[in-house]
Amino acid sequence: MKTLKFAVLPGDGIGPEVMEVALNVLNAAGDKFGFALEFVSADIGGIAIDNHGSAFPDSTREVCDQSEAILFGSVGGPKWESLPPKEQPERAALLPIRKAYSLYANVRPGLLYPELTDASPLKKERIPNGIDIVCIRELTGGIYFGQPKATTTLDNGEEQAIDTMVYKTSEIERIAQVAIDTAMARGRRVCSVDKANVLETSVLWRKVVTEYFEKNAPEIELSHMYVDNAAMQLARDPNQFDVLFTENMFGDILSDEMGVICGSLGMLASASLGAEKNSLGFPFGLYEPSGGTAPDIAGQGIANPCAQILSGALMLRYSFGQLEAADAIEAAVEKAVTSGTRTGDIAFGLEPVSTKEMGEAVLSNL
Amino acid sequence: MKTLKFAVLPGDGIGPEVMEVALNVLNAAGDKFGFALEFVSADIGGIAIDNHGSAFPDSTREVCDQSEAILFGSVGGPKWESLPPKEQPERAALLPIRKAYSLYANVRPGLLYPELTDASPLKKERIPNGIDIVCIRELTGGIYFGQPKATTTLDNGEEQAIDTMVYKTSEIERIAQVAIDTAMARGRRVCSVDKANVLETSVLWRKVVTEYFEKNAPEIELSHMYVDNAAMQLARDPNQFDVLFTENMFGDILSDEMGVICGSLGMLASASLGAEKNSLGFPFGLYEPSGGTAPDIAGQGIANPCAQILSGALMLRYSFGQLEAADAIEAAVEKAVTSGTRTGDIAFGLEPVSTKEMGEAVLSNL
Ligand SMILES: CC(C)[C@H](C(=O)O)[C@@H](O)C(=O)O
Ligand SMILES: CC(C)[C@H](C(=O)O)[C@@H](O)C(=O)O
Repeated sequence: MKTLKFAVLPGDGIGPEVMEVALNVLNAAGDKFGFALEFVSADIGGIAIDNHGSAFPDSTREVCDQSEAILFGSVGGPKWESLPPKEQPERAALLPIRKAYSLYANVRPGLLYPELTDASPLKKERIPNGIDIVCIRELTGGIYFGQPKATTTLDNGEEQAIDTMVYKTSEIERIAQVAIDTAMARGRRVCSVDKANVLETSVLWRKVVTEYFEKNAPEIELSHMYVDNAAMQLARDPNQFDVLFTENMFGDILSDEMGVICGSLGMLASASLGAEKNSLGFPFGLYEPSGGTAPDIAGQGIANPCAQILSGALMLRYSFGQLEAADAIEAAVEKAVTSGTRTGDIAFGLEPVSTKEMGEAVLSNL
Repeated sequence: MKTLKFAVLPGDGIGPEVMEVALNVLNAAGDKFGFALEFVSADIGGIAIDNHGSAFPDSTREVCDQSEAILFGSVGGPKWESLPPKEQPERAALLPIRKAYSLYANVRPGLLYPELTDASPLKKERIPNGIDIVCIRELTGGIYFGQPKATTTLDNGEEQAIDTMVYKTSEIERIAQVAIDTAMARGRRVCSVDKANVLETSVLWRKVVTEYFEKNAPEIELSHMYVDNAAMQLARDPNQFDVLFTENMFGDILSDEMGVICGSLGMLASASLGAEKNSLGFPFGLYEPSGGTAPDIAGQGIANPCAQILSGALMLRYSFGQLEAADAIEAAVEKAVTSGTRTGDIAFGLEPVSTKEMGEAVLSNL
């Protein structure tokens, strides 16, 4: 029997509640598909600031170092909101982890079941069959880490701040490959989003992406779109996209817009894949719900655990190669939700169930 | 009788058709409110590339130099789409004009009449009273013009591209003043959008904005939001904003998202205000519809002229201080449209009218 070793970082707010349910589902999937879980939990985010003085403490890093993947909850909350933006839990946990493990590829399915179109802010007739797209975001380059990044005082006494957006060929090629892999398993259409009419990095992005696709995936239909237009098209007709593919900053904005258009962040999972392979030969990765810590409902046992469960499924798929188990979990979530078991965020007139009951419904459909 | 001297740059596609109607409306407003128009037309965009080899030729620049404001149509089209992104008409016309006249403040009303909620992609219950917000975008700073902006070859043969995002105190303060002026004439709430958890420029932006508002407009309710969250909130509940205020790149994305959420780009105008005053003591400015050249319907006389008419109204307000005339035109457009005269883009079951008929309906309500 295979043992899947991963780090569990539940974090703050609803993180621990939904993580517990997700681990139950992963366990049951293991029973069914013949693997055992071996996980170690550690503090991350706000609770780690409180307990260890750092949002991503060394002790947590060691746990991650010894794992094949990270299952992440969510971090942050009102308690830490008065910290300066760069010390807030989400930023202070996620950016160092991305850097430490070169998590360069963020994969976010934008999925809305047809039965749930009520949850989307978009009119039903715009998305008669729900939404099914994927956003691939470059996650370690661009303006996030580019140097120089500094504030100085000018001769006249004013302050001036600078950020640098940088991309090089190899960075663009490796994320292009992720877009290709994703599209090959779907509709074989990739829309690459940039701002090539203004940015040098986008001119290079467009050129490298075009050449790389021509050479490595001529069967994929590649198109290009400016980011301002993409922000419009997502809100107008999301299903015109199959794979939406873009750089770090644009992906931050567009993937969140996509998330809200898909109705409930409580249903959306994400994978952040690393450049390194784990000991099983699969990419090391971090898996997390797209939503936040939902402090308003934390501790009440009513949060939607589906995003966390689906993040677990992505972990099985990408970092452990357990494709069947991943498919089964995704199907079980869909069946549970579409047959009417719903937490409050997606209840729409149905009697809402608790986090645990939602988990049980998924288990019984597995 | 006052004479209002401005440059008319109709551009490509539907530009000339809607411009003609807008000028008729401005003329009628002049008759009513006691001013005469004195305008000179010149080529801009694709037609200028064809006729003069440049999207913003010297001859057009001279016309603008001798004007108090610019009424702009729209530029671009399939004919020039194969040009490299940076040579395409929109980019090659707009960026040099913004630079030439230091058009640092982009003001975009996001207005959807309650009668037109069908036009929005958002569910009616999200916007029961339509939408009424304004986006203020910094337009000459940030990553658009920051240096260095270059592509180089690295030692290992790879290419690397760099863009630089820069802001200094005075640049942020002058656009903050525009946000304040706008908010004082509306709901007195400003939401400043940045990415202060990642960008140095955003940390400075947030600090300068906070201090400037405290000192100069303590009566305004100022809040801050990260750009990824703003992209979500706009699609979830646009009316939570009164004035949405942000830097150049974020404003490019968010104002377009706002535009599509407001239903029809054919209804949305914008003002780009310059640092210099014109000879009347008002800001020199460029006024243009938010939509594009609509090549699919160009030449058919069916385009919606309202955005162009409303751009004319913004010109009267900001560059000529003709507040009454501006208000009257805006009211006339609203009356014409809400009483049922609609071009095809916003007809929704009504019999669509032509560009000219739409203009006549506005005139008859003036
Ligand atoms: C917390 C923040 C630094 C982060 C980002 O901007 O990448 C977050 O918004 C995300 O998308 O995961
Ligand atoms: C054409 C382009 C350079 C321009 C911009 O990015 O500012 C356009 O998108 C706009 O918003 O006016």
